[in-house]
Amino acid sequence: MLVFGRNVAKDLLKKDKKVQKIIIQEGFDDKELLSLIENANIRVETRPKREMDHLSNGVHQGIILDIPDYQYKSLDEVINNSNFIVMLDHLEDPHNVGAIIRTCEAAGVDGIILPTDRQVQINSTVMKTSAGTLDNVNIVSVTNVANTIDKLKEAGFWIVGTALDDSVDYREIDYSGKIALIIGNEGLGMTKLVTKKCDYIAKIPMYGTTNSLNASVAAGIMIYEVIRNRK
Amino acid sequence: MLVFGRNVAKDLLKKDKKVQKIIIQEGFDDKELLSLIENANIRVETRPKREMDHLSNGVHQGIILDIPDYQYKSLDEVINNSNFIVMLDHLEDPHNVGAIIRTCEAAGVDGIILPTDRQVQINSTVMKTSAGTLDNVNIVSVTNVANTIDKLKEAGFWIVGTALDDSVDYREIDYSGKIALIIGNEGLGMTKLVTKKCDYIAKIPMYGTTNSLNASVAAGIMIYEVIRNRK
Repeated sequence: MLVFGRNVAKDLLKKDKKVQKIIIQEGFDDKELLSLIENANIRVETRPKREMDHLSNGVHQGIILDIPDYQYKSLDEVINNSNFIVMLDHLEDPHNVGAIIRTCEAAGVDGIILPTDRQVQINSTVMKTSAGTLDNVNIVSVTNVANTIDKLKEAGFWIVGTALDDSVDYREIDYSGKIALIIGNEGLGMTKLVTKKCDYIAKIPMYGTTNSLNASVAAGIMIYEVIRNRK
Repeated sequence: MLVFGRNVAKDLLKKDKKVQKIIIQEGFDDKELLSLIENANIRVETRPKREMDHLSNGVHQGIILDIPDYQYKSLDEVINNSNFIVMLDHLEDPHNVGAIIRTCEAAGVDGIILPTDRQVQINSTVMKTSAGTLDNVNIVSVTNVANTIDKLKEAGFWIVGTALDDSVDYREIDYSGKIALIIGNEGLGMTKLVTKKCDYIAKIPMYGTTNSLNASVAAGIMIYEVIRNRK
């Protein structure tokens, strides 16, 4: 996975994270970074700006790092060792996914499940917005969301979705058992199939005219509601 | 205020919002937008890509709209007509400011106060991430945060800040009176002067190793905690 930018590079090199390769722009002159790179004993390539722009969509600030891809965890292992799982139902915005991972880490959520298709995977923007929490969470990537929910149910999980229709106030649900909380797509909400499989559908009450929250904000409110009665 | 991009343009033109001027790139060929523009009877200028890039930092997708700046409300008026105010203490990320405004609108917060300096103002990114809620909230811009807090106290508001130190569990605070909730800077938290003036400092409990939430997520959890006991 390629990650970009001076702050990210400094952070990774200072924390002694595994970096496979560093690409710097011709004429790169950030002294702090050059000294970190010198001490790190990592393969360095120098490339012209044009090539760097191409690799990163132009947001590299002169430095690109190649780091190992996130190693997803096994579904069975995570299900067996969890009481509270958050599942993302096809989120599109990497900032939301990163912020939700950060909230999960802070709240002590045991596992996070993402669909493999039509869903942001763990990329460099997610890494950045998750603020260094990726190493402390268990993320699973699944190809079949419906089968995964069935598996969770068999393992004793209650499936709690979020929507505005056919729903109950989020404060009135009993979260004391094993909970799998589902966060729907930013614009479309949960898919129909997933909605059907929910045991509860929770609604965060709204009093304005627009009636929607940012997905990571809604996830934060729901996650803290679940742990409210647990810890 | 200049705003950029095809989705924003479509949204504003469809909703018949006040647009002062439209700038399109030479050769612009989005048929839906061209037809919306034709019907709208607004002054249109055509400019080369280089000039458009310069106006927008390169993210215009061929169309830039000039719309009226946000009209800030008067502090006295907002204080007199509010029971719940959210105050931002020097936030830097426009995505956070936009998401917080969106949450305030959904939760029915009466007013939002921003410092004039070292704080993201209402710009095009804030407008975009606030998801069309700007028209339904009362935002005040103030030059002196400390004086503003004193004014709020005189008007009977309890000042609730957020921090990790010297703080009480956010669920244990009495939010039944008039509340001014303060959200601190993304990296630095609240300024010292503001911290000193708080009646309560609330802590959202965290169980991970990283111990921080995204500012808009923390704001969402706090805002819904305040309204929990009110509506």
